Amino acid sequence: MSTPTTTPVTVLGLGRMGAALAAALVRAGHPTTVWNRTPGKAAALAADGATVASTAARAVAASPLVIVCLSDYDAVRAALAGADVDGRVLVNLSSGTSEGAREAAVWAGELGAVYLDGAILTVPAAIGDPSAQILFSGPAEAYAAHEAVFGALGTPVHLGADHGLASVHDVALLGLMWSMLNGFLHGAALARAAGVPAADFAAIAERGVGTVASWFAGYAGQVDERSYPDDDASLNTHLAAMDHLVHETGALGLDAGIPRHIKDLADRAVAAGHGGEGYAVLAELLFRS
Amino acid sequence: MSTPTTTPVTVLGLGRMGAALAAALVRAGHPTTVWNRTPGKAAALAADGATVASTAARAVAASPLVIVCLSDYDAVRAALAGADVDGRVLVNLSSGTSEGAREAAVWAGELGAVYLDGAILTVPAAIGDPSAQILFSGPAEAYAAHEAVFGALGTPVHLGADHGLASVHDVALLGLMWSMLNGFLHGAALARAAGVPAADFAAIAERGVGTVASWFAGYAGQVDERSYPDDDASLNTHLAAMDHLVHETGALGLDAGIPRHIKDLADRAVAAGHGGEGYAVLAELLFRS
Ligand SMILES: NC(=O)c1ccc[n+]([C@@H]2O[C@H](COP(=O)([O-])OP(=O)(O)OC[C@H]3O[C@@H](n4cnc5c(N)ncnc54)[C@H](OP(=O)(O)O)[C@@H]3O)[C@@H](O)[C@H]2O)c1
Ligand SMILES: NC(=O)c1ccc[n+]([C@@H]2O[C@H](COP(=O)([O-])OP(=O)(O)OC[C@H]3O[C@@H](n4cnc5c(N)ncnc54)[C@H](OP(=O)(O)O)[C@@H]3O)[C@@H](O)[C@H]2O)c1
Repeated sequence: MSTPTTTPVTVLGLGRMGAALAAALVRAGHPTTVWNRTPGKAAALAADGATVASTAARAVAASPLVIVCLSDYDAVRAALAGADVDGRVLVNLSSGTSEGAREAAVWAGELGAVYLDGAILTVPAAIGDPSAQILFSGPAEAYAAHEAVFGALGTPVHLGADHGLASVHDVALLGLMWSMLNGFLHGAALARAAGVPAADFAAIAERGVGTVASWFAGYAGQVDERSYPDDDASLNTHLAAMDHLVHETGALGLDAGIPRHIKDLADRAVAAGHGGEGYAVLAELLFRS
Repeated sequence: MSTPTTTPVTVLGLGRMGAALAAALVRAGHPTTVWNRTPGKAAALAADGATVASTAARAVAASPLVIVCLSDYDAVRAALAGADVDGRVLVNLSSGTSEGAREAAVWAGELGAVYLDGAILTVPAAIGDPSAQILFSGPAEAYAAHEAVFGALGTPVHLGADHGLASVHDVALLGLMWSMLNGFLHGAALARAAGVPAADFAAIAERGVGTVASWFAGYAGQVDERSYPDDDASLNTHLAAMDHLVHETGALGLDAGIPRHIKDLADRAVAAGHGGEGYAVLAELLFRS
């Protein structure tokens, strides 16, 4: 049934994310076998052409490539107990820590499987779209052998052989997401307290964010070199403007926790003698814990 | 010399930003008169066609529209002492607080000027490009009368009649910028500590940021309605993933200040009974100071 560009693939777990992964694989024409602990979640997939296995062991036996997407790493071990993964490539797209990923790699290796860890940086609805970033870490050959299959799920990125890297990047990006959302919500609250709909601020903020993101590459280079020239504005200049933010927040009667956190970090860096350097010098405070 | 679509305009202040503003106006064909406290900064502009005035008073007398871009609001009052602004539109693009903007509006009104306050959301090099957002607040008629001139500087946005609005949005966006940069630098530090170049993380982060920004409009609507449905993930779900970030940060030996700040805010909201609501419910903590 398969053409040379398709690969038989098994998906274990048909929760919100697993179901989206399986659907994208079916759409891409890969012979797809699915399994879920609680039966009944595979009906739509079966109608679209997926093969439904009655046990995880049978599902694993059906394909050389096995993608697992369950709640957590404990669930992965529970689901695979009794399945023969020897000689298969096992790809775990469940969220976890780098420690958990490295332990899972050892465990899978003992069972004879080649293990790839992964992290999905988007919501189920975006699976299959190029905007969906999916990170992988583990042996480069196994990744390269199945990159085309992963490409059906979104835009796959291989980070390196260390199995922990996908999880590290996953939490690093989540940290950026929460930071952004907190900064946005503080701005939205300021706008609303000043009598402007937060929706108006959102439009301005969305455009502003693109400008800030365009500085990431330059700042990353500075972090890699651990050298932070004052190309645009010095930390001292930023600090002066931070006072305006703290002042405005107080004048509008809002909680000052977020501005204070921002200013504390800059204050600490200035106290450490970095006031004349560029903003990215704050990374040095993070390294020196 | 001027065609019907050009307006004589004066620029006071030829610092890094003022010089960029004047250059963009000259490029757009507006008859431009410039002045700077310290002489000698107008040479390049004069060569391109700007008229150089020997005093601020003479520069103001040359145009119905006067744009001021100096270090701060005190400098604006000092520069305009002795100039006759009666009947002119005075546009102050210097950075400050909403309080300072409202005071400047009263002061300018007493001198007979129509006052617009503004804030420039970009660097001098981007002036003249549509990506350059410039915010205005003050009387809508004065803004509308000169919107075409402002359009030569970037993309102008009028926020409302309250003169303080441009400054409020300016600091709100700066707050978002610092939050983003802190989240990014923490992620870059995590990547580097895990043995990956921060530059690799930057590429992934830049794409991820676009996804997060696309949620702003929806979250802003929730803030405006002060209703935060659990459409995507609940705060409880986020909190579980925040534990991974704190854990990973500690395991890599980095300072945990940024993750702890993120988790503290979410912890407070969960303690206040918001765990089952969406992420934007954090705005309620900011309103309740
Ligand atoms: N949803 C998202 O937006 C999103 C985004 C990025 C990453 N992720 C990650 O993707 C993974 C799955 O998320 P999801 O949204 O699909 O979650 P979900 O809808 O809650 O589904 C959880 C899945 O795990 C299975 N499961 C849990 N414990 C199990 C066990 N002990 N043995 C066998 N199966 C077990 C469930 O089976 P039953 O049906 O039998 O309960 C179900 O298939 C998580 O690690 C999540 O962090 C999700
Ligand atoms: N540069 C940016 O990236 C940027 C971005 C957004 C907003 N802004 C805002 O734009 C404004 C100007 O910034 P800039 O970058 O152009 O600063 P700048 O290069 O330091 O220039 C400051 C200007 O203010 C003048 N000035 C200061 N005190 C004065 C006084 N008492 N009387 C008369 N003139 C006085 C200076 O004149 P002299 O030449 O005589 O000293 C100079 O023209 C600031 O409010 C800044 O926050 C700048």
